[in-house]
Amino acid sequence: MQDALLALTKYWTDRGCMIVQPFNTEVGAGTLNPATILRVLGPEPWRVAYVEPSVRPDDARYGENPNRLQTHTQFQVILKPDPGDPQEQYLASLEALGIDIHAHDIRFVEDNWANPATGSWGLGWEVWLDGLEITQFTYFQQAGGMSLDPVSVEITYGVERIIMALQGVSHFKDIQYAPGITYGEAFGQAEYEMSRFYLDDADVETQKRLFEDYANEARRMLDARLPVPAHLHVLKCSHTFNVLDSRGAVSTTERAKAFARMRGLAREVSTLWAERREELGHPLGLSSLPAAATAPASFAEVTEPAPLLFEIGTEELPPHEVTRSAAAVREAVASKLAATRLDHGDVVAHATPRRIVVLVENVAPREPDAERFVRGPRASAAFDASGEPTKAAQGFARGQKIDPSALERVEQDGVEYVGVTKTDHGRGVLEVLSGLLGEVVGELRADKNMRWNDRKLSFTRPVRWLVALLGDQVVPVTASSLTAGRETRVHRTAAEPVVPVATASGYLDFLADHGIVASVTVRRDRIVLAARDLAATVDGTIDEQGESGLIDEITNLVEDPNAILGGFSETYLELPQEILTTVMRKHQRYLPVRTTSGDLLPHFVAVANGSCDQDAVRAGNEAVLRARYEDASFFWRADLKVAPETMKAGLARLAFEEKLGSMADRAARIAAVAGDLGAALSTADRSTLDRAAALAKFDLASQMVIELTSLAGVMAREYAARSGEPRAVAEALFDMERPRSSSDRPPATVPGAVLALADRFDMLVGLFAVGAAPTGSSDPFGLRRAAAGVIAILRAHPALSDITLERGLAAAAVHVRAQGIEVRDLGDVEEFVVRRYEQQLLDAGHDHRHVAAVLPLAGAPASAESTLREIEQRVGDAEFAALVAALQRVRRIVPADTTASYDPAKLTEPAEVALHQELVTASDAMAAPALADFVLAATPLTGPINTFFDDILVMAEDSDVRAARLGLLATIRDLAAPVLDWQALGTSFAAE
Amino acid sequence: MQDALLALTKYWTDRGCMIVQPFNTEVGAGTLNPATILRVLGPEPWRVAYVEPSVRPDDARYGENPNRLQTHTQFQVILKPDPGDPQEQYLASLEALGIDIHAHDIRFVEDNWANPATGSWGLGWEVWLDGLEITQFTYFQQAGGMSLDPVSVEITYGVERIIMALQGVSHFKDIQYAPGITYGEAFGQAEYEMSRFYLDDADVETQKRLFEDYANEARRMLDARLPVPAHLHVLKCSHTFNVLDSRGAVSTTERAKAFARMRGLAREVSTLWAERREELGHPLGLSSLPAAATAPASFAEVTEPAPLLFEIGTEELPPHEVTRSAAAVREAVASKLAATRLDHGDVVAHATPRRIVVLVENVAPREPDAERFVRGPRASAAFDASGEPTKAAQGFARGQKIDPSALERVEQDGVEYVGVTKTDHGRGVLEVLSGLLGEVVGELRADKNMRWNDRKLSFTRPVRWLVALLGDQVVPVTASSLTAGRETRVHRTAAEPVVPVATASGYLDFLADHGIVASVTVRRDRIVLAARDLAATVDGTIDEQGESGLIDEITNLVEDPNAILGGFSETYLELPQEILTTVMRKHQRYLPVRTTSGDLLPHFVAVANGSCDQDAVRAGNEAVLRARYEDASFFWRADLKVAPETMKAGLARLAFEEKLGSMADRAARIAAVAGDLGAALSTADRSTLDRAAALAKFDLASQMVIELTSLAGVMAREYAARSGEPRAVAEALFDMERPRSSSDRPPATVPGAVLALADRFDMLVGLFAVGAAPTGSSDPFGLRRAAAGVIAILRAHPALSDITLERGLAAAAVHVRAQGIEVRDLGDVEEFVVRRYEQQLLDAGHDHRHVAAVLPLAGAPASAESTLREIEQRVGDAEFAALVAALQRVRRIVPADTTASYDPAKLTEPAEVALHQELVTASDAMAAPALADFVLAATPLTGPINTFFDDILVMAEDSDVRAARLGLLATIRDLAAPVLDWQALGTSFAAE
Repeated sequence: MQDALLALTKYWTDRGCMIVQPFNTEVGAGTLNPATILRVLGPEPWRVAYVEPSVRPDDARYGENPNRLQTHTQFQVILKPDPGDPQEQYLASLEALGIDIHAHDIRFVEDNWANPATGSWGLGWEVWLDGLEITQFTYFQQAGGMSLDPVSVEITYGVERIIMALQGVSHFKDIQYAPGITYGEAFGQAEYEMSRFYLDDADVETQKRLFEDYANEARRMLDARLPVPAHLHVLKCSHTFNVLDSRGAVSTTERAKAFARMRGLAREVSTLWAERREELGHPLGLSSLPAAATAPASFAEVTEPAPLLFEIGTEELPPHEVTRSAAAVREAVASKLAATRLDHGDVVAHATPRRIVVLVENVAPREPDAERFVRGPRASAAFDASGEPTKAAQGFARGQKIDPSALERVEQDGVEYVGVTKTDHGRGVLEVLSGLLGEVVGELRADKNMRWNDRKLSFTRPVRWLVALLGDQVVPVTASSLTAGRETRVHRTAAEPVVPVATASGYLDFLADHGIVASVTVRRDRIVLAARDLAATVDGTIDEQGESGLIDEITNLVEDPNAILGGFSETYLELPQEILTTVMRKHQRYLPVRTTSGDLLPHFVAVANGSCDQDAVRAGNEAVLRARYEDASFFWRADLKVAPETMKAGLARLAFEEKLGSMADRAARIAAVAGDLGAALSTADRSTLDRAAALAKFDLASQMVIELTSLAGVMAREYAARSGEPRAVAEALFDMERPRSSSDRPPATVPGAVLALADRFDMLVGLFAVGAAPTGSSDPFGLRRAAAGVIAILRAHPALSDITLERGLAAAAVHVRAQGIEVRDLGDVEEFVVRRYEQQLLDAGHDHRHVAAVLPLAGAPASAESTLREIEQRVGDAEFAALVAALQRVRRIVPADTTASYDPAKLTEPAEVALHQELVTASDAMAAPALADFVLAATPLTGPINTFFDDILVMAEDSDVRAARLGLLATIRDLAAPVLDWQALGTSFAAE
Repeated sequence: MQDALLALTKYWTDRGCMIVQPFNTEVGAGTLNPATILRVLGPEPWRVAYVEPSVRPDDARYGENPNRLQTHTQFQVILKPDPGDPQEQYLASLEALGIDIHAHDIRFVEDNWANPATGSWGLGWEVWLDGLEITQFTYFQQAGGMSLDPVSVEITYGVERIIMALQGVSHFKDIQYAPGITYGEAFGQAEYEMSRFYLDDADVETQKRLFEDYANEARRMLDARLPVPAHLHVLKCSHTFNVLDSRGAVSTTERAKAFARMRGLAREVSTLWAERREELGHPLGLSSLPAAATAPASFAEVTEPAPLLFEIGTEELPPHEVTRSAAAVREAVASKLAATRLDHGDVVAHATPRRIVVLVENVAPREPDAERFVRGPRASAAFDASGEPTKAAQGFARGQKIDPSALERVEQDGVEYVGVTKTDHGRGVLEVLSGLLGEVVGELRADKNMRWNDRKLSFTRPVRWLVALLGDQVVPVTASSLTAGRETRVHRTAAEPVVPVATASGYLDFLADHGIVASVTVRRDRIVLAARDLAATVDGTIDEQGESGLIDEITNLVEDPNAILGGFSETYLELPQEILTTVMRKHQRYLPVRTTSGDLLPHFVAVANGSCDQDAVRAGNEAVLRARYEDASFFWRADLKVAPETMKAGLARLAFEEKLGSMADRAARIAAVAGDLGAALSTADRSTLDRAAALAKFDLASQMVIELTSLAGVMAREYAARSGEPRAVAEALFDMERPRSSSDRPPATVPGAVLALADRFDMLVGLFAVGAAPTGSSDPFGLRRAAAGVIAILRAHPALSDITLERGLAAAAVHVRAQGIEVRDLGDVEEFVVRRYEQQLLDAGHDHRHVAAVLPLAGAPASAESTLREIEQRVGDAEFAALVAALQRVRRIVPADTTASYDPAKLTEPAEVALHQELVTASDAMAAPALADFVLAATPLTGPINTFFDDILVMAEDSDVRAARLGLLATIRDLAAPVLDWQALGTSFAAE
């Protein structure tokens, strides 16, 4: 292993990095060494590489876990500014480590880094070697709340795991550290003893005192304007906090306070450092970035129409941005072309992780010329009595550089103006495309955008090259520092990674010849086909439907899908399948292989990128999965030793939200709310609910869920069942986490549904109360999902119709208030939920007028649901349409403040008497809440209402009569109102 | 600089060292990293190399001092066990650094390391590169109170200074750290800011609390039997202590307590670590050391006498051991030879730092045979009446393996015995020498001895080879793992560093041919001659007399003296000369060059070892001296800014002794004692004394004296004079530190003498009171020197005769007691001083009887002195001799308890009456204290005394008469007693 450290050191010093030593106080990551976290600030260049033993007390495992250490070794590289080819430099460093990058599958998989606490973030990837994460690669964008200019590239190698892979060992202790000595021999005792210190023996009171002392010392150093010792003490603070945390000694309140304090100090350190460097005159000088490319000054003439190829070459895009970017760029090119007069054929776009390709057929060589009339003054004001041009006309003519005699007369909107007709000469195609395509690049944007070594561009990942060809001719496009050419980049490990493109025609074939499948659909089909074939070789199958999202993601992780079948030991099949599939999907992007009946087989399909040594890549991926399953088995066995109740005590250590307290607090509130809401359940359900409520969320404190959070509920069910809880309780605990997403199923059991509701009501009320309602795209606690969950559950459980939104929110509010938190208007929360419901219904394709009509019922979604169904069944029902029209007419006529009472004695005209009598007959039956019942009862009123309006002047002169007539109509209105919002139906029925 | 770190890393990993990272908490030296301090314990092998940024808050200088940093870089290597050739491996590492070891003067200069606090020590060297200390090289002997088995070699490179020398820069900031970036650019800001923290801004109360917390955490970890986290916290403790110290916040009491605590913890950590490793079964296995050499079983025959060469090859001996070892080995060989019957010529020995050579001429080929009589039973018991051998005789004969008939008869002491004459056959020379020389090596010892990779041998430095030749034949000698041969080692940088020796004859010439001067006297002469010649080239001279000790040392630092004249800038001559010469002598072993009138010239003579590039070596040495003088100038300028009073306040921070308090306490006591003792001085002297006493020892707090302790007093004089104190005060402050050694002069001024006496009386009384009296060879506070100083001062200042030892010690005791320390019998102290005086006189060659005679007067050495002179002048004076004999006779006759009074009326015999009358005449004059006066008065008594004894029987029957006679004699005795101890003169005069 030490050879590897030396090889990396040599590699990076040869590339101009200076070497510094690990920091001489405990740090959790190389990033925290001042050589990174402070040096990335400000304009000075900085290239550094160093080893950083990274201390993470929480990862202490007494040296027993094969992959987890309280101190692991990072090798950290900072390149500031971005050298423009950091990925290529990085890949060469792997070769320096002895990794054959041609044989192995090396991938850049989206992984962004953010430490909101210190106002720091960056975009980048985890680098995979045959599925193993070996490096974190980040373009550092912000630190200490300051935007970084220039941006730094941070490369963090996880040395132990690289070495374990290279040496083919499965426990860190077996790493050959140096000739004749293993990692375990060299560091095993320290690993054990420091684990003891961090997990069992560090004195809590002492560490708390140390925390205070360090924080105060940091404060003093800031006041003395000494960022270096201040930073040192922030680090000591942070390490001490980690020690306390691993000792389980940090309460939620303390955690929040501690974080706030460290965050504040860290930000001040950054600011102060930047200030000090400026005061010192930036001793290392200023970074230089590539200059802007020279924009073309003249353009060649083109004579024939030709196809256009425009390729934007990027570093690996996040999968969801691949498809999105293709569409966005296509749209941008198309609409910009439309704004010109250039004739062209179809605009199509394709994308892979590394390129967005736009192809336009038949682009004309020039824009045609175009004429336009430039309007001057009114003719009446343009010439004086003698017919001579006035001063106004003369001025206009001068401005247009024509003689006044050349002024033309044109009539517009009935007024005669003078003016001049001008010819806009069409531009040559190269001039048009040059500007247009340059703009497309300059305007590229994604969900999250970043900067790199370019002064102006910004995108989700760096844009590194442009190809622009019209037929076989280069289109002279520039975008900031980039100049388009005819050279594209193919696989980085190709013999020639940069190749010239002769012509725009047949570019997809050209790419295919270089092993690149530009089309998303083709790539996806290939993956599905190959995976299916591979699965079949072990009598298995792939759940194409169920894995659809994963397949989409995989499709956009590769340019050249190369599916490989791997296997794992059958012994792991003893673990709950959700664990196995979660690991495969979420961590490894492997497709699980199942029997036709859906049971897992000990196989998986991994999709590598491009050609590689299949055996090596298979072996690598299998080893990674084995390690992950080992980890999971370790957690599984450890968790099974702890009774659910005992485990639940651990919730007190898990923070939920600063004001709302810990997960234990939240679980207690959920249990209480569930108790309130479930008052009317059957005895059996009630007993299940009570027990499940007592255990609610206990699995969040399990090692498995802490590691794989998406298994919350799944593990609760497993652990509860295995600890002897009744099956129903276990299922309720599983159910209460459902639905996890819009595509997930709601709880199947009633006690589970009540718990799930209580969970979400608490979340909504609590977080709204503390001001954490979602804003814009920010919804850190997933409240939109929670609201949708409430609706989904209530829709799925009509039997729980007594649990309205209003009641549920009110019940939750009681317990949030009990925690001393002011809960004001619950209306906002209800409105928020109803909006999600509305969205759900609209997304499901319901007519927006029908949806609007039932929204007043949304407080009980099951009934809104059935009303909606009822409405939709009546589409085309003339009788219903007539009723709707009549009721709408009633509503329109009656002022809103009219009360629903009248003196029948005042009604004397036949039409009004008839209506009155019909209403008396129907009114009891109309009070039914279900639409069908109402319609049955109310339909007889349609005729009398229409007659009433035909015959009667509602607004009679006699006020008593008028009042009686209005009262009659208001009574009908109010009887109809609870059923649905009739006005909202609009003309949807009238139109039929 | 980073290239150098990488080169060293590569060099040592290529030699089987593993690399570890610097420790992730602040350490003061690489030794403290657990990879050294813990791993050297126990039997497991360990080879490691690492960089260690070493944090020493005390060295913080805001980055301003060119050579001093709060964090400097060590490169640390541990080789366990000693590989047998660590020096050679080390030299090759310098070549790996690009140092031409043939061009430069590289030397191993004795420098031992001890940290008594933690029970750790080792012997070794500082390695000099052209006079620059670049590495500490230590054979680690003990750590944490445990003897190390095997011994580890510790090599600590001081990286910044090596690089400064290699790059030829004079400020650390100018080091080219990596391409394009200097050390100052990379680390300058941190150096400044951490200096601020350590010197000015760290919060004292916080750091004190941290110290407590760390110490307690270490304690708890020890109790939990976790040595690794315990050690971590001891280190944190230690660093915090250093921070407090550099903030000037540690009082003497606190320092003592803190040290005691850290020491205790560190020792426990070591013990626990060793135990734990044993419990773990020594995971790294056990070290293996070279096996014992096979002792010769048979010996070749030698026929002719031949010369013997025996060479013991060592690593660089401490200079004082070179000459001592030569003598000791010569003596050992000679006495062992004397115990054999082997004939041989002269035994001579020579020594250099790397070899002890014994040459014996004309060694006979064999011992002659020898006969001896083995005595059996008495003849009377050997044969029965019939002449047959008795059982006793038979048994004896059987035991001697002879026939009883062969028994001989021999008379011894008048008794006839039977027995047998046996012949001891002489052994061959090779057999004799083999055993004898092997023993010499096995019994080698020095003042301080060490172990290396040999299981049995022990010496001041490792013995690495043996040459034993008799004529041209190898003598088969073995000593533990060593086997003698004919190969010797010459200069390590020679083309062939190991060369065969053909024959014992002419070995000194053989060595001379290889550039090695074996004879100490020849080397010394060469040095003196060359230095004198070089000095003459700049019209200068060398003070051969004054530098005699230094020349002796230099002589034993080289095998091949190569004197080089260097120079320094004249501007440094503005500094006090003592500073310049102290640096030259003490730090650099350079000979100062002076004018004939004794003024310093800006030149020096350095003595390199062996051939080298003179210009390079000169330049190197000049650069080192320049850096040292720059440092000194820095201190000088800084000190001059501080007034003596202000500086004196710093004494409170300097510890003297735990119970006796700080230097400030001690200075206060000295001032008080001086006030008491100086009561009778003249007004002028008294005023000088008072002022000097007020400032006493102030310069100990100066940066210069903290750096160069031997300048205490010198700097006091300089700084006092420059701050405007009267010349006399400055001189008194200078004087009070004299004499510094037995060869130094006592104070010249009376106030200085009084202060110097007060200083030493305080030291003696105080340290005896706290139980720190010297024992054996241990005299850490230099009390023997202090006692000798008292005597020297009193001898030099007869005017201060009223200051007797008794009075001085009593005065000191008053102030020691005032500090709450119990002072019991001062007799011990006085006795201790008197013994030193006795030794001084004997060493000066006085007759031991004369010395003994005046010792009763030692309480006032000046008068003892004059009495001794008087005695010596009377040697050969018959009259005096007669007086002495008479007085001794008186003393002998009179019982000790006889009182000196008598009734003259009882004396009736003429001889007694005559004596009485003579005594009455003389007695008043005899009461004079001076010997001369006494003799003048007493001589007339000689005759009457002798007559008295001739004529009178003292022991008369009449008791009254007897009492009168004894009283008469006792009166004479008592009059003579105060003058000297007459009996002690013995027969020294009688013999004349």
